[in-house]
Amino acid sequence: MRFKLTIEYDGTEYHGWQVQPNGRTIQAVLQEALTRMTGESAVVVAAGRTDAGVHACGQVIGFSLQHTVSPQALQGALNALTPPDISITAAEVVGDDFHPRRAARSRIYAYRIWNARWVSPFWRRYAWHVPRELDREQMRAAATHLVGEHDFTSFQAAGCEARQPVRRVLRSDFDHSGHLITYTIEATGFLRHMVRNIVGTLVEVGLGERGVADLPGLLAARDRTLAGPTAPACGLCLQRVNY
Amino acid sequence: MRFKLTIEYDGTEYHGWQVQPNGRTIQAVLQEALTRMTGESAVVVAAGRTDAGVHACGQVIGFSLQHTVSPQALQGALNALTPPDISITAAEVVGDDFHPRRAARSRIYAYRIWNARWVSPFWRRYAWHVPRELDREQMRAAATHLVGEHDFTSFQAAGCEARQPVRRVLRSDFDHSGHLITYTIEATGFLRHMVRNIVGTLVEVGLGERGVADLPGLLAARDRTLAGPTAPACGLCLQRVNY
Repeated sequence: MRFKLTIEYDGTEYHGWQVQPNGRTIQAVLQEALTRMTGESAVVVAAGRTDAGVHACGQVIGFSLQHTVSPQALQGALNALTPPDISITAAEVVGDDFHPRRAARSRIYAYRIWNARWVSPFWRRYAWHVPRELDREQMRAAATHLVGEHDFTSFQAAGCEARQPVRRVLRSDFDHSGHLITYTIEATGFLRHMVRNIVGTLVEVGLGERGVADLPGLLAARDRTLAGPTAPACGLCLQRVNY
Repeated sequence: MRFKLTIEYDGTEYHGWQVQPNGRTIQAVLQEALTRMTGESAVVVAAGRTDAGVHACGQVIGFSLQHTVSPQALQGALNALTPPDISITAAEVVGDDFHPRRAARSRIYAYRIWNARWVSPFWRRYAWHVPRELDREQMRAAATHLVGEHDFTSFQAAGCEARQPVRRVLRSDFDHSGHLITYTIEATGFLRHMVRNIVGTLVEVGLGERGVADLPGLLAARDRTLAGPTAPACGLCLQRVNY
């Protein structure tokens, strides 16, 4: 049987999604829980391979088991076997060919910024603290330049293994509530560090260090050294995967 | 000079507000920071003496210093000297007779409940996890019975030092967003554990273990043993103090 699960995690204490020789990862914790539950060694595949410290509230994973079990029983057992910073929020049986990454039509990431002089005790694990005042209107205007099909080489991490750097961005906008600024981006796919490199650049716009009109030129240049710094991992959250 | 500060804190790692012989408290951390900053030993008074594990996002404190300092400089210095789970969000100079508890007209507390079978990785530190389904309409109806001036002896912790148990509740209602249920109560004053004992009782109503119509009788009985259990500290947050 093949299963599709939706999961949430607070990534603070993990070295990202993918199994590593050193350091605890989300994938390793889930695979160990499945082995403890069924005795089988399943390989768990995720829609998005989140980096160290990145969170998820709508990650989708897939795996196959020889074991016969109802999705409800599987969800209950895995929630009992995983630590409280990982939760399975939904479970269903899917066809044997379901691959959470290849089948995804789009992914939505949120990036949160806490924009006040003081650190927020409640958002310190889930948002980037930017103490200097940001011009929210300028950031919003700059963000709209990213919508559409573009070559995102300028926002791609060194060492990214993607075969081609063109991605279609369906949504790129800001929302705010008091001191909390949330950037939401939906795309058919993402390059490594793409969201964090975009946010690092948009924050430079918000600080007045870079103009709104620079964005199209940055995309056209296809040069990572021209864009802004990589924003910290803690602000990023994989919100949802659409199929 | 006397100062009035508004502060936020994540109470998870603290033994409550008040200085204790054993265990780190919010008051102790603030007093130590003031001493490091000024060399003076100031006594910091709070509007609400929150218990161990209780949070605040609008606690108000007051203290006097011989030292001459602007409120902005004081805020910046204290934020630099306190850990990231305590923040000063506003500071002003007040008259020498300002007492944050005695001057308060009302206090607003929020109590958060995470109502899903699975634990929320993001709310686990800030909400009570109730896995069984709650009847939100019944809880809302029960909550309205608490508005007005009542003797709250039935909801008072053993050992509470209050001289008289009558309090005026100005607001008592529920709000929800997905799996998160927030109870908000505003009153002229609170007895020890009053909010947590009320929430423990309202959750029994939500589980169908107690009827909405029981509330007036519970208040009239003036007997702590008849009300529900004390809800966990982690769900409680001092939201605001009105002057």
